[in-house]
Amino acid sequence: MTSDERSAKRWIIGKPLPTEQLEGELLPKKVALPIFASDALSSVAYGPQEMFLILTIGGLAMLANAPYVAIGVMLLIAIVVAGNLQTVKAYPSGGGDYEVAHRNLGPRAGLVVASALLIDYVLTVAVSVSSGVDNIISAFPQLAPLRVEIAVGCIVLLAAVNLRGVRESGRAFAIPTYLFIASVVALIVAGVVQTIAGDAPVASSAAYSVQTDALSQAAIMLLLLRAFASGCSALTGIEAISNGVPAFRRPKVRNARVTLVLLGVVSTSLFAGITFLGLVSQIHYAEDPCDLVGFADCETTPQQSVIGQLGAAVFGDGSPLFFVLLAATALVLLLAANTAFNGFPLLGSVLADHGFAPKALRTRGDRLVYSNGVVVLALGAVLLVVVTQANLNALIQMYIIGVFVSFSFGQAGMVVHWLRLRRDPRHRREFDPLAFGINVVGAISTATVLVVVTITKFTHGAYLVFLIGPVLWVLMWAIQRYYARVRQEIAPDEHTVFGAKGDHAIVLVGELTKPVLKALDYAIAARHESLEAVHSAIDPDAAKRLKRAWVRQGVRVPLRILPSPYRDVSQPVLDHLESRRAEHGPEVVTVYMPKYVMGHWWERILHDHKSRRVRQRLALTHGVTIALVPWRLQSARLLEEREGRPLPGDARRGTARRPVRQHHGRQSRR
Amino acid sequence: MTSDERSAKRWIIGKPLPTEQLEGELLPKKVALPIFASDALSSVAYGPQEMFLILTIGGLAMLANAPYVAIGVMLLIAIVVAGNLQTVKAYPSGGGDYEVAHRNLGPRAGLVVASALLIDYVLTVAVSVSSGVDNIISAFPQLAPLRVEIAVGCIVLLAAVNLRGVRESGRAFAIPTYLFIASVVALIVAGVVQTIAGDAPVASSAAYSVQTDALSQAAIMLLLLRAFASGCSALTGIEAISNGVPAFRRPKVRNARVTLVLLGVVSTSLFAGITFLGLVSQIHYAEDPCDLVGFADCETTPQQSVIGQLGAAVFGDGSPLFFVLLAATALVLLLAANTAFNGFPLLGSVLADHGFAPKALRTRGDRLVYSNGVVVLALGAVLLVVVTQANLNALIQMYIIGVFVSFSFGQAGMVVHWLRLRRDPRHRREFDPLAFGINVVGAISTATVLVVVTITKFTHGAYLVFLIGPVLWVLMWAIQRYYARVRQEIAPDEHTVFGAKGDHAIVLVGELTKPVLKALDYAIAARHESLEAVHSAIDPDAAKRLKRAWVRQGVRVPLRILPSPYRDVSQPVLDHLESRRAEHGPEVVTVYMPKYVMGHWWERILHDHKSRRVRQRLALTHGVTIALVPWRLQSARLLEEREGRPLPGDARRGTARRPVRQHHGRQSRR
Repeated sequence: MTSDERSAKRWIIGKPLPTEQLEGELLPKKVALPIFASDALSSVAYGPQEMFLILTIGGLAMLANAPYVAIGVMLLIAIVVAGNLQTVKAYPSGGGDYEVAHRNLGPRAGLVVASALLIDYVLTVAVSVSSGVDNIISAFPQLAPLRVEIAVGCIVLLAAVNLRGVRESGRAFAIPTYLFIASVVALIVAGVVQTIAGDAPVASSAAYSVQTDALSQAAIMLLLLRAFASGCSALTGIEAISNGVPAFRRPKVRNARVTLVLLGVVSTSLFAGITFLGLVSQIHYAEDPCDLVGFADCETTPQQSVIGQLGAAVFGDGSPLFFVLLAATALVLLLAANTAFNGFPLLGSVLADHGFAPKALRTRGDRLVYSNGVVVLALGAVLLVVVTQANLNALIQMYIIGVFVSFSFGQAGMVVHWLRLRRDPRHRREFDPLAFGINVVGAISTATVLVVVTITKFTHGAYLVFLIGPVLWVLMWAIQRYYARVRQEIAPDEHTVFGAKGDHAIVLVGELTKPVLKALDYAIAARHESLEAVHSAIDPDAAKRLKRAWVRQGVRVPLRILPSPYRDVSQPVLDHLESRRAEHGPEVVTVYMPKYVMGHWWERILHDHKSRRVRQRLALTHGVTIALVPWRLQSARLLEEREGRPLPGDARRGTARRPVRQHHGRQSRR
Repeated sequence: MTSDERSAKRWIIGKPLPTEQLEGELLPKKVALPIFASDALSSVAYGPQEMFLILTIGGLAMLANAPYVAIGVMLLIAIVVAGNLQTVKAYPSGGGDYEVAHRNLGPRAGLVVASALLIDYVLTVAVSVSSGVDNIISAFPQLAPLRVEIAVGCIVLLAAVNLRGVRESGRAFAIPTYLFIASVVALIVAGVVQTIAGDAPVASSAAYSVQTDALSQAAIMLLLLRAFASGCSALTGIEAISNGVPAFRRPKVRNARVTLVLLGVVSTSLFAGITFLGLVSQIHYAEDPCDLVGFADCETTPQQSVIGQLGAAVFGDGSPLFFVLLAATALVLLLAANTAFNGFPLLGSVLADHGFAPKALRTRGDRLVYSNGVVVLALGAVLLVVVTQANLNALIQMYIIGVFVSFSFGQAGMVVHWLRLRRDPRHRREFDPLAFGINVVGAISTATVLVVVTITKFTHGAYLVFLIGPVLWVLMWAIQRYYARVRQEIAPDEHTVFGAKGDHAIVLVGELTKPVLKALDYAIAARHESLEAVHSAIDPDAAKRLKRAWVRQGVRVPLRILPSPYRDVSQPVLDHLESRRAEHGPEVVTVYMPKYVMGHWWERILHDHKSRRVRQRLALTHGVTIALVPWRLQSARLLEEREGRPLPGDARRGTARRPVRQHHGRQSRR
């Protein structure tokens, strides 16, 4: 790209956006739905499947209970959606359950939610990708041996995309999400029609039976609870909207709530439909395929995912629609995984605002920061996927603990919120009994489910969450304590006076290069009381060469050569400063040095360590100002181009970043 | 430690060392020997063992050839020592074979040596540690199941010690090394005496026989070569001295050469003695213990190392001397591993001098740099140990390729060196026919061995070296090309004139803290033509608070609040600079901001990213000087204490680092 084109491009994207235009950056409902819903909707791809799987442990007879379990799940979805409607209204700033818990139950409770969510982001990636791979394999069984490789590949791909930076464009999300909804609806409708028409779809696994030992009443009860708990994985992602209110078009709250209701309706009906079809077509899905009597080569071939089996039964195996369905499912699951990469920095910035996470997470547009987040998230997910061999069932055991921690704390927080309003005379009129009731119900039921989920899943892997969660909690708490201590340390009082005197300047010179000449020039322009150039003579010959070059170049600033018997650059300079101090007493000395600006991360490894080292040492001596005069290497261009790229979470944060403008032309002469 | 004590301590270590005192820092022979010899000597712990092991593959009959193989190895040691004596004399600067190859065969050849050595440093750690663990297990067989864990533990320990920083003290090395020599000599003497007295020691493995299929003549020949190749592992570490000449007391060269001869004598005699005892006591050591007919539970119990078996046979199993011997062996092997951690940064700095490695490696006393080296080395070694399950035999297969690459290139280089001298009329008189002859022999024989080693080991793992080596080579070459390009980019010409004008100054203010006040104060002291304080109003309320605080604190510098609709700190500042530019035309603007100085690495994660980000952006705009005013947090003290600590390789480099002096007292008021 020529510099003309570049400057042209910069001119176009460079024009500042007045705030009303900014609205254009915000999301209309039809775009917001796919962006925020992919996570929640995609979970119906594994929710019912897990429910069937657990029930089947108790034998095929247990499947008869599927409807009741399903109804329980759907009811819960309704309750959570209703509860979140109140949250969105009361806390439209996008802090979601974390904020609600933080404000009403105190920072400690808020942190519990935060650490739970952090863990769940990692699990969202792992679960969604694994489920996605399941569905890919259901379409192309020959890929089965590569399952882990494909899963890891997907995660790496997502990470790469988010590192490179892509704006969550509505269209990119809309097409797969709506395609997914459409094809699942088509599946359900067709299936129902076929059933009514008398030739109900028959799943490929219908023929298999399961041998199991008779179960005690208690065991059956426990199984039902476990099935319910696993089915609840369909609720994951509903919280996304309450975290993304700021990204909606005006009226934000109203639009967000409408979208939330839409989301609830769609996901419950999908869940219901898939469960229904699963029962009608007698899908038999087992934890261990070899429990399925009649499933021939259970060792080698994988079970077809529930969606896959339904697609095959209704549309016909290998039919175009079958592939469309599975493709859409896989895609939407990948998008769901992607949401974690966007949600993570968002939560991070909120936590940073409250001082529980490194302030850096609050610094908009700092690529480095976001990159670290993306990498950490990806590594965590890869680890999980590799350890569990991308086994969805194993992952689901750890999943949704976090979600329900945040749900129940969020709802409990809302209850407190209402009670406070009622107690407070000024706000009593805002108290809404209906909303209050909804949140009470929400709090109680989500808390109950949390207990159920914990009990039923703890030994199956959930205990990990209870190990890592507290660690995160303590970490964040410690961070906040640290910041508090520093704030105290640097708080000024009326006695804070420095009264610095003197204005000497030194330019550090290694070799006589353009960057050094520029630094000299700027130092001259700053008109200090006194100015000298200084060189630590690590190598006497180099020093001689420098002296000659100094004359040749006709530099007017006096050059002082400091002997450096210990081959150390900084020590002689420090000694020089010290001796000046001894003569002139405390004075401010401005030490100029060039600073290289470069475009590639690896260039940082190759440059500038010596001056970094000198800076370090200077920073420990008194009365010194370190003046860096930037020198842009050619590769620095890349930085400017990168500035333009969007960062993960931008779309959800709803604050469009203003494109960057840079000045150009050669740096010399200016 | 109270601040009094601290300042006292600083006073003591703080006093500068005049150069004559510096001599005290250099190594007398008796200290140099252990420091430089531990690597070479320790290798007799595994050299003979590997020789026996390979021979045994061909059946016990083959062991009859051990003496001839051993003689071959000892001869080679003698040749290499003789060759190195010349190197030390001709190139006393400590560049060793790398320098010789670089100067005489050209940089490309030098790089080959360099990459070979880099790989061998990693292998030295892995091999020495694994062998050390072998000997520990020989003393305490019940530890066998933990072999890998112990090995990794040792590597981590070494890394930790070197990260923390320990001067290679003569004593720490002397005691184990001399103890090792003493106990092995005692072993040999005792063994010989017993043999003469008619009751020769009998190894625990003497009873075992080995079943093997008859070997073809060719196979036998190949086996002999392989045995020789493995025995040559006893030569590793001899090069250490030629790399450490600068560390010797005056007369450096003479002392280094004497030490080298001592080393050669000691290690050949140890090698000879152990081989002799091994034969007398009929040690049977097999690649796979289960090849030993009569070795009962070969699956579970490990073979006792050769040293261990000899100790048991001569001193009696479980006798005090037996444990002393094995302890000394294990210790000296750990020291040998440690030498890699010291040699690595040394080679790094030489490479950096030639521009083949990041310049940072040349920056004396930059902890960060050394730390990275230590970590990389440790990770590589851990990887090797884990992959090979700390199996010494597997590791030896990759080992010593590098050593012999450097030997043969070094010797070849010396040959060229002599030829040049002879051709050059001015230096003809320096030509030394004897030395020349020695180096010719050295070059030919080491080259031959290199070929043998490569052929016999390639398929057994050595191929890895031939994969990684070239990669390193290309990498270093690319680095050098990059530096060349940049040097060109920044080279000044007679037209290089910047002619900067104007002297405006800006102090960036976030909140009103002591660091900010200090920055303001320094900016005032610098007496710029115009000075203003600037604040990006990300949060309007915070801006209001700042204004009030500004008045309360009575700051005289005008405060300008820049609106920041996009919640970005840097953009408004950049726009402000731009608008100034539009008014006043190109001028130099000095932007002041506080810079936090802190002691813990993790504090860097918690601080300063925002200002780092701002610096980045400012560095891309024209006519800006970034003036950092350091603010030392209390934790910054730690930095000064750390400055005092020695760095890996200091002792070998022979350039004592001058202890650091810092000024103290509270920073305000000055």
